[in-house]
Amino acid sequence: MTSTGPSPSLDILGIGNAIVDVLARAEDSFLASHGMAKGGMALIDAAQAEAIYGVMGPGVESSGGSAGNTCAVAAALGARVGFLGKVADDGLGQVFGHDIRAAGVAFPTPPLPAAKAPTARCLILVSPDGQRTMNTFLGACVHFSEADLDAAAIASAKVTYLEGYLFDPPAAVSAFYAASRLAHAAGRLVAISLSDAFCVHRHREAFRRFVREEADIVFANETELLALYETEDYAAAVEAVRGEVKLACLTRSEHGSTIVSGAETVQVAAVPTQVVDTTGAGDAYAAGFLAAYTKGLSLAEAGRWGAVAAAEVISHFGARPQADLKALVANRG
Amino acid sequence: MTSTGPSPSLDILGIGNAIVDVLARAEDSFLASHGMAKGGMALIDAAQAEAIYGVMGPGVESSGGSAGNTCAVAAALGARVGFLGKVADDGLGQVFGHDIRAAGVAFPTPPLPAAKAPTARCLILVSPDGQRTMNTFLGACVHFSEADLDAAAIASAKVTYLEGYLFDPPAAVSAFYAASRLAHAAGRLVAISLSDAFCVHRHREAFRRFVREEADIVFANETELLALYETEDYAAAVEAVRGEVKLACLTRSEHGSTIVSGAETVQVAAVPTQVVDTTGAGDAYAAGFLAAYTKGLSLAEAGRWGAVAAAEVISHFGARPQADLKALVANRG
Repeated sequence: MTSTGPSPSLDILGIGNAIVDVLARAEDSFLASHGMAKGGMALIDAAQAEAIYGVMGPGVESSGGSAGNTCAVAAALGARVGFLGKVADDGLGQVFGHDIRAAGVAFPTPPLPAAKAPTARCLILVSPDGQRTMNTFLGACVHFSEADLDAAAIASAKVTYLEGYLFDPPAAVSAFYAASRLAHAAGRLVAISLSDAFCVHRHREAFRRFVREEADIVFANETELLALYETEDYAAAVEAVRGEVKLACLTRSEHGSTIVSGAETVQVAAVPTQVVDTTGAGDAYAAGFLAAYTKGLSLAEAGRWGAVAAAEVISHFGARPQADLKALVANRG
Repeated sequence: MTSTGPSPSLDILGIGNAIVDVLARAEDSFLASHGMAKGGMALIDAAQAEAIYGVMGPGVESSGGSAGNTCAVAAALGARVGFLGKVADDGLGQVFGHDIRAAGVAFPTPPLPAAKAPTARCLILVSPDGQRTMNTFLGACVHFSEADLDAAAIASAKVTYLEGYLFDPPAAVSAFYAASRLAHAAGRLVAISLSDAFCVHRHREAFRRFVREEADIVFANETELLALYETEDYAAAVEAVRGEVKLACLTRSEHGSTIVSGAETVQVAAVPTQVVDTTGAGDAYAAGFLAAYTKGLSLAEAGRWGAVAAAEVISHFGARPQADLKALVANRG
C-alpha cells in the first residue's frame, strides 16, 4: 500500500491518532497534586502540554498512538499491515513516520503542514506499579478526515481496526463511519477498541451506536465494557456485548482475557511477566489477536498471541515491541 | 547556577556535546553491511544522518551526550551538578534541555538559533549482545565555544568534567583549555573521559598533551587507554597514566575497575546485571565515582558507586537512569 499505484492486500488496516509518546516516571503523589486520574487518558491543549512537560521528570520519546501501536505489533508478528493517521511535517512527525514504516507498516497519509498544528504528543506518567496515566495533546490529529481514507487499502484489508480515541477529534468521527461503510461494502470486517473508560464516558452514545450498528469485533477491558453499558455487573455487560457483535475480546489484565463469539466463550490465561510499564498492553493484545485471527488460527490461539504480545510490551518502558515477537509466540506454542 | 545571579557551589560541572540519542536494535549483519565499526562512535554529516535513519529500525529517543549522561546520573545520586553544552532552539533541543533540567542539573548555555544548525543527534544501533554502535551528527555542538563558559560556575565546582569527544568540534577544544585554566586558577580539579578509542586515535596528540598538562583525573576503558599510549601492554599503559595524573579510573566492563592514585591501586568489582544496552556505561561509572568522590568518600566506595550506576544503565535501553540510584547505592553498601 502506497499513496500511488495499486494497493496489495492487507490483513489489518488501522486508523487512529498518530501520536509520539513522552514517557517519564512519576510518583502517585505527582498525579494527585496535578489533578490527574491515575490510569486514564485526559485531553489537553497546547498550553497544558507545555505546563505538564515543564514539571515532568526526564523523558523517553517513543512513537505511540493506540492503533499505531497495534499496527506495529501486528507487523512484528508477520501480518500485512497499513495505518492511516495524521502527523504534521515536523520533527516528531518524522519520528512517527520513520518508526511505523521501519516496523513494516504502510503509512500513506500525507502529513499536515506544521504551521497548521504540530504532531500530537502524549505525556505519559508511569507510576512505580507500572500503571500509566496519559495526557494527550491531539495537535495535527484533529485534521484527519474522510479525505485521508485510502479506499483501496480499506477494501483490501481483512480487518479495518479503529481506535475509540478517534471519537475525540470531531472530523475523525465521520471518517470513522465512512471507513466502516467502505470495509463492509467490500465484505470485510470492522473492529473497534474502546480505548479508555473516560473516552467511553465522553462519547457513550456514539460508542453504543457504533458497536451496535457497525462493529464486527470489539476489544475492551473491564472498566471500558462497564462504562459502555453503564453497569457494574460485569457478567451482564459480557452478555450485552455478546448480543451486539460477532466477536468480543475482553481483557482483564493479569486475569487473562475472555473471547465471546455467539454461544462460544473462550478463556485465555495471561502470560506472567515483570510489569514495568503497562502503556500499550491493550493495543498489543489486539495486535496479537488480529495477527493470528487474520491468519485463520483458532480463537484460543489468537487470544494466546494477544497475551504473549501484551506481556512483552508491559515488560519494558514504551508501547512498541523490543523483543522478537515471532519467536515469542512460537516458543510458547 | 543560573545564567543570572551568583552561582551556588557545585560538586561537578560537566562540559560536553549536547546530543539526543535515537536507539534502535540491529543485527551485527546490519552494522557490517553499512560499514560500521561495532562498539565505536563515528562522526557523520547531516546527509549521512538522514540516510542511516532511513534504514534503521523503529527508534526510541532519549537525551544523551557523554558528559550530559554523567551529569544526569550524578545528580540522581545527590551531587550538585551543572552542565554546559550547545543545543539548537528546535524540538530536540527542547527535549535535551527539559530532560537535563528535570534530572536536577543546571543548564545555563543559551541555545543556538536552529537556522544555523540543528540539535545534535546520535543514531545508536544496539546489537543483540547489548553492545552499541554510535553514529553522531554534531549539528549545533560545533558552535560551542569559549563564550559559552560560565566562569563562576567552573570556579565553584569541585570537579570540572570534560568529555574527550569535545576534541572533535574544533571550537570546543579552545573552550576545553580555557575551562581547565579557570578551574585550576580556582584551585579546583579537572577530569577528562577518554570517551572512545576511535576518538583517541583521531586526536591522540591533543589527548596526550591534555592528560599530561591539564588533567587531574582520567576516566578510560581498556581500549581507550591502550589507544592513548599506543601500546598493547595494558600494565604498561596503567603505569604510564599513573605517572601523569593524580587519579585514574580504569574500567574493564564485567571485570570491574582499577583506580590508581600515586602508589595506591584499588580494585573494584563490577555489579552483575543482565546487559540490555551498554550505551552510557562509562558515563554512569564516572558519575557514580565523582558523586561519591566529591562527597569525600573513599576511592573504593567511589568505585563501588560507579559500578552500581553503570550496572543500572546497562540493564535497560538508554543511557539515563530509570531506577532510584540513591536507593541502589545505599542497599548494596
